[in-house]
Amino acid sequence: MNYAERYRTELLDRVIPFWLRHSLDREHGGYFTCLTREGNVYDTRKYLWLQGRAVWMFSKLYNELEPRAEWLDAARLILDFLRRHGRDSEGRYYFSLTRQGEPSFYQRKPYAAVFAMLGMLEFAKATGDAALRDEAIELFWKIRRWIEEPALLGRPALSGAPRMTALADIMVLASMATEIARIDSDPRYRDVLTWCLTASRAHYDEDRRIFMEYSGTRELPEGRLFCPGDSIEAAWFLLHALEFHPDDAMQRTLLDAIEGSLEFGWDREHGGLYYFMDVDGLPPLPLESNMKLWWPHTEAIYATVLAYSLTREDRWLKWLERVDTYAFSHFSDPEHGEWFGYCDRQGNLTNTAKGNNYKGCFHVPRMLLMSLGRLNGMTGSARPR
Amino acid sequence: MNYAERYRTELLDRVIPFWLRHSLDREHGGYFTCLTREGNVYDTRKYLWLQGRAVWMFSKLYNELEPRAEWLDAARLILDFLRRHGRDSEGRYYFSLTRQGEPSFYQRKPYAAVFAMLGMLEFAKATGDAALRDEAIELFWKIRRWIEEPALLGRPALSGAPRMTALADIMVLASMATEIARIDSDPRYRDVLTWCLTASRAHYDEDRRIFMEYSGTRELPEGRLFCPGDSIEAAWFLLHALEFHPDDAMQRTLLDAIEGSLEFGWDREHGGLYYFMDVDGLPPLPLESNMKLWWPHTEAIYATVLAYSLTREDRWLKWLERVDTYAFSHFSDPEHGEWFGYCDRQGNLTNTAKGNNYKGCFHVPRMLLMSLGRLNGMTGSARPR
Repeated sequence: MNYAERYRTELLDRVIPFWLRHSLDREHGGYFTCLTREGNVYDTRKYLWLQGRAVWMFSKLYNELEPRAEWLDAARLILDFLRRHGRDSEGRYYFSLTRQGEPSFYQRKPYAAVFAMLGMLEFAKATGDAALRDEAIELFWKIRRWIEEPALLGRPALSGAPRMTALADIMVLASMATEIARIDSDPRYRDVLTWCLTASRAHYDEDRRIFMEYSGTRELPEGRLFCPGDSIEAAWFLLHALEFHPDDAMQRTLLDAIEGSLEFGWDREHGGLYYFMDVDGLPPLPLESNMKLWWPHTEAIYATVLAYSLTREDRWLKWLERVDTYAFSHFSDPEHGEWFGYCDRQGNLTNTAKGNNYKGCFHVPRMLLMSLGRLNGMTGSARPR
Repeated sequence: MNYAERYRTELLDRVIPFWLRHSLDREHGGYFTCLTREGNVYDTRKYLWLQGRAVWMFSKLYNELEPRAEWLDAARLILDFLRRHGRDSEGRYYFSLTRQGEPSFYQRKPYAAVFAMLGMLEFAKATGDAALRDEAIELFWKIRRWIEEPALLGRPALSGAPRMTALADIMVLASMATEIARIDSDPRYRDVLTWCLTASRAHYDEDRRIFMEYSGTRELPEGRLFCPGDSIEAAWFLLHALEFHPDDAMQRTLLDAIEGSLEFGWDREHGGLYYFMDVDGLPPLPLESNMKLWWPHTEAIYATVLAYSLTREDRWLKWLERVDTYAFSHFSDPEHGEWFGYCDRQGNLTNTAKGNNYKGCFHVPRMLLMSLGRLNGMTGSARPR
């Protein structure tokens, strides 16, 4: 099993260099994410989900792999731009800015703020900047309120809106609270994690062993929607949360959720994980449902590595090999670096972009870095600090 | 050329019966659009773009094909529901309602109102209801303001938002104003059509002979975006507008736009019209860009029929045959009626729904009815009144 070596090479020789070489905007700050296969910019806007995610990613590499100045510099270039231009007067984050930083589009969702928060916190860990850490934590509580009251983000509260919780909201609360709990022993963050673990049960389909996208009625398409990538990512987020709430039964359930999602989400005819499925086999509303996207596969790779590191059971190695083989043969681009993002059901690339308004420097390097950490920890070689 | 007979059979034996049999909600009003291949309801929400479109469609059948009571009844069932539940206190239209009529989602766009307006106007033509006609016309002027000032719909005016006009806005203004101008000689509607014809020039790419989705800079992906279906539909909307502004040079340009869109938008490898393309071959942002959807093909069929009826040139018959063959072999469902909506690039169905939140009783029957009218007009048989 030479995964660790391969992942390290992919990360350090092909993925991170692609972003450092092509994406940073030294003139106006921030980074470009709309890059062609070769790394040419085809849209100069700055998409804020991805600005925050890259701050987090470069800071994490600096904190956990090695303290390279160029990684911290890249994080700072993006963070400064994000903090200078990303927010409106009420502290809500835009979805996109022009290259220069003028607000371009506002989405009535909390996720741009989530990734800004995670980026600030990780950068603060790197630099020891207590004021920035406090700013991140203050934003965490704001986001929690926005999730409870979406009207604060401008989304009208309508009497007939489906009454469902979104798995995505549990996921972002769990990931943020886990990161804070690692540096702050205040019990309130552990309480949020308890809430997330409990709330996730309403999304869990025991028969199929998967997390559903929305809790509640199965009469609406949303209530039948299963996103293998989200289900798997939610499971590993919650496994991380168990650091603070050890619970063997819950651990078994979360491992089951990874396996169940792989089994139900895998296309037995053409291989790969579907983007969306209706669990009753009815038509899903998103047109791109049967496509194969890069990120469910990165989540599945890390989740199987994590599951193997926790259990040492062979079944995880079988899934790891299957997903790794599909992902590297369809998405990795040894010639130009970073990964392609989008295949049709049969596995043909539908476009060759390396990034766009939702794909940036995040899922691929995060998977590689975290898998590397787990794999090195297991084989006895130096675990990244 | 037995297109007319085939289209009449498709319309009256397979398309309209599908909707009449499966979609009408006799209990709460309105109609369901989320129907499986066989006509089972998989989402009971009422999507308002489609409610308005069906009112228009059933009224148009009644007005132009024959005055069947069941068509007018269907239109009334949907219109009553739409008028009772569709609007907020400021007269803005929701995107979706629950089955019972509670507001479910609000979209910051004017299009739900556009189709409500068209439906009311056509129903008023059928019944001679002057108050309803006035209500429709009043709504037309509201929509025009909303298009000029999207902030009135709750979309914040941001300093960095791309300064572009949307082809869709020209299209809806042209289609509404044409319908009004046919029953109201007030010169203001003809002035709107003059504005539309002039504004369309900023979208016209003379080299490729296509209408671009957005006017303005080609630096952003939106500025390079070409939707063959919209380009073709815009061309035939504007050809209709020429009823009120005869202009041979403009007619030639619009015919060129139909031909250019077919040539540039046609997939020479797998057949069919792409959904979206970047004219410079860069990656388009919508994930579903290279899919083949039913409606660009319905627009192309009617546009080629219209072009042939205006010119009697053989080139249009060649395109009609090619598009008709692709559309009927991929989308039509002789077994259960109505058409499938979504294929991947290779032409495989990606789901088998007959309707969803954006597909209802509209594009297929509109194409069949209008093509029939043109074809019958040409062959000398009784033209529908």
